[in-house]
Amino acid sequence: MIDPRGQETLSGSAQSEIFQILRDGRPRTRSELATLTGLARSTVAARVDALLSAKLIRSVADAASTGGRPSRQFSFDGTHQGVLGVDIGATHAHIGISDMRGTLLSDTWETMPVADGPDKVLGWAIDEGKRLLKDMPDAGFIRAVGVGLPGPVEHMTGRPVDPPIMPGWDRFDVPGMLGDAFGVPALVDNDVNVMAMGERNEHWPDIEDLLFVKVSTGIGAGVYSGGRVQRGAQGIAGDIGHVFVPGADDVVCRCGSMGCLEAVAAGPAIAATLREAGLDVHSPQDVVAAVLQGDIEAVRAVREAGRVIGQVLTTCVSLINPALIVLGGPIANAGDHLLAGAREVIYTRSTPLASGSLQIVKSRGGDKAAVAGACSMAIQHALSADSVEALIRDTAL
Amino acid sequence: MIDPRGQETLSGSAQSEIFQILRDGRPRTRSELATLTGLARSTVAARVDALLSAKLIRSVADAASTGGRPSRQFSFDGTHQGVLGVDIGATHAHIGISDMRGTLLSDTWETMPVADGPDKVLGWAIDEGKRLLKDMPDAGFIRAVGVGLPGPVEHMTGRPVDPPIMPGWDRFDVPGMLGDAFGVPALVDNDVNVMAMGERNEHWPDIEDLLFVKVSTGIGAGVYSGGRVQRGAQGIAGDIGHVFVPGADDVVCRCGSMGCLEAVAAGPAIAATLREAGLDVHSPQDVVAAVLQGDIEAVRAVREAGRVIGQVLTTCVSLINPALIVLGGPIANAGDHLLAGAREVIYTRSTPLASGSLQIVKSRGGDKAAVAGACSMAIQHALSADSVEALIRDTAL
Repeated sequence: MIDPRGQETLSGSAQSEIFQILRDGRPRTRSELATLTGLARSTVAARVDALLSAKLIRSVADAASTGGRPSRQFSFDGTHQGVLGVDIGATHAHIGISDMRGTLLSDTWETMPVADGPDKVLGWAIDEGKRLLKDMPDAGFIRAVGVGLPGPVEHMTGRPVDPPIMPGWDRFDVPGMLGDAFGVPALVDNDVNVMAMGERNEHWPDIEDLLFVKVSTGIGAGVYSGGRVQRGAQGIAGDIGHVFVPGADDVVCRCGSMGCLEAVAAGPAIAATLREAGLDVHSPQDVVAAVLQGDIEAVRAVREAGRVIGQVLTTCVSLINPALIVLGGPIANAGDHLLAGAREVIYTRSTPLASGSLQIVKSRGGDKAAVAGACSMAIQHALSADSVEALIRDTAL
Repeated sequence: MIDPRGQETLSGSAQSEIFQILRDGRPRTRSELATLTGLARSTVAARVDALLSAKLIRSVADAASTGGRPSRQFSFDGTHQGVLGVDIGATHAHIGISDMRGTLLSDTWETMPVADGPDKVLGWAIDEGKRLLKDMPDAGFIRAVGVGLPGPVEHMTGRPVDPPIMPGWDRFDVPGMLGDAFGVPALVDNDVNVMAMGERNEHWPDIEDLLFVKVSTGIGAGVYSGGRVQRGAQGIAGDIGHVFVPGADDVVCRCGSMGCLEAVAAGPAIAATLREAGLDVHSPQDVVAAVLQGDIEAVRAVREAGRVIGQVLTTCVSLINPALIVLGGPIANAGDHLLAGAREVIYTRSTPLASGSLQIVKSRGGDKAAVAGACSMAIQHALSADSVEALIRDTAL
């Protein structure tokens, strides 16, 4: 298949055709690869050799052959290269290394406010990343860095844009700083997209249309339509935290507007509700603790937040008709109360066809979901046609 | 580029690689095609011959050559095959034939309620289609039929599913009936997706993320994300007419629910508002006439409808971050009042980044937008890799 906009660069992407076929892990012979691609057998042989040199594929057990000597088979080998994944949250930073199969090899975590600014937070990531890399087989082990940030990111540049909770980060060149430090491309996306990628690749690879909703200090969504993460025109698709919620006109949001969804239904709003009810609750973590202790006010408040989030999600269901909504983040993961509230409203208000086979579930990713998602995003880039070509060229030099 | 899910059928799609390159209309020599695809020159020559026989490409002026005889060039030829486009509305049916470039060659139109059922409406389309086809160069001229229906369509089967205004159509095999009648594949989608495709292909081909919103008897949207029409899990993405509008809890919708967007802001709702104000207005067409006559009540009611639609679209803007919203259908096309109301609310309530470069415009497609869109959808199918292979096989037999 050919991207009509990229057609004049075809020789580049045709080069990696063999590798893209082998990525599914199934072993194939040179002869099978020639049939599948229509390329000349001599071309296939040369490309297989290049991929072997680059350690992107390996020779596996020979296939039974109909007469003559048995044919060698080749399959994807994801163990010789890897990626770095960085998850920057509102109050923490987490970094890990995975191989090209997505297996996390090592990781480290620290409490750190994103408001400390990019020099401090990314400086920590660079120091820790270099420390983790020392245990890897060779200095060139990582081929890309993936980063999730807790705010809107302009997809074209990978820079945060007007991030409300990230003072000092506006238009900071995150890919430049990390790319320079590690000498590989750095991909940056917002943390919710990154978590959505991890959740989908790991648990729901066959679902083409899904919404991943994170409920924590803020509320945001990652949108998969037609099997791809959709970022929209400015890279802020899924930014549903500032949708206006009718009836909440008097609630001030941290963004400066009134009546935003996250001002009513995210962790801090639930905490405020509970303080009014006399509980000693100050953070999303306190809300989670109160729910897990079975506090009835906390359970009620989280369920009500689920209903409000469900109102907004009902419109989202009509617009993109997902097969699956995954609720993630700490508030969603504390019992089934947020899920129950959201289900109640979505199943009541959606049209029968839209809700008939719609699943609404809790996230299965644990506390490493975001760093695993950042690795997953970096792997996607590192194994793309252009990156594979670059690796083969580097190896040949 | 290779679709990982389709990789074992590559030889089929690689077959049409040359044609897909030539689709942009730019002439190229065999030698250029060999370079672009990496295919052997003998393979390129054989495939060029097959495409010439199938009349999908033609030989054009020779290229200047560096010594030796000049090389022949080849380019896409869209004049020897065509498609049929069928636009079924709530109260009309429209059918046209276009060539593979999308140029409409002939069309015919009739007032006809969709509620007359599929046998009558599709029977008319078959009779008129066959009549129009008599004027075409050969019986095999059309390679596909595209159909837009005024209700939800299951994308996998092309059948309408629980369509609220289409009694007798539920799960009717529209592609089967038209496919049998014309002996070619029939693609069916809802009329709004079809109009969105026509509008985008014709006027905004470079925009990847857009919403096309039709305001007529009902309200629906066509959703482009990442450059592709998104249909969602059940093919009903964009079905925003039944989103709940807060404050309209007492308004009964034709779908049986309360407070749906189209029960408040579509043509019939505006007409009802105007009747309460003493105007003799019964249909969306009457509303349009009143607005065009400058009736102040009608102008106010349409603008207010625009505001309500704008509320729902604001959530859509947050979710998919479009670069463009196109308002179409008769109500949107009567002056700029619906547009003004929608803009007012969307620009007020959206986040600065989402609305900063968001354009909100009226549809440029005229009354042939839907039939042109149906043709566009059919062309997309007829020029796909598999269809081109089938045509080459048919020609060779």
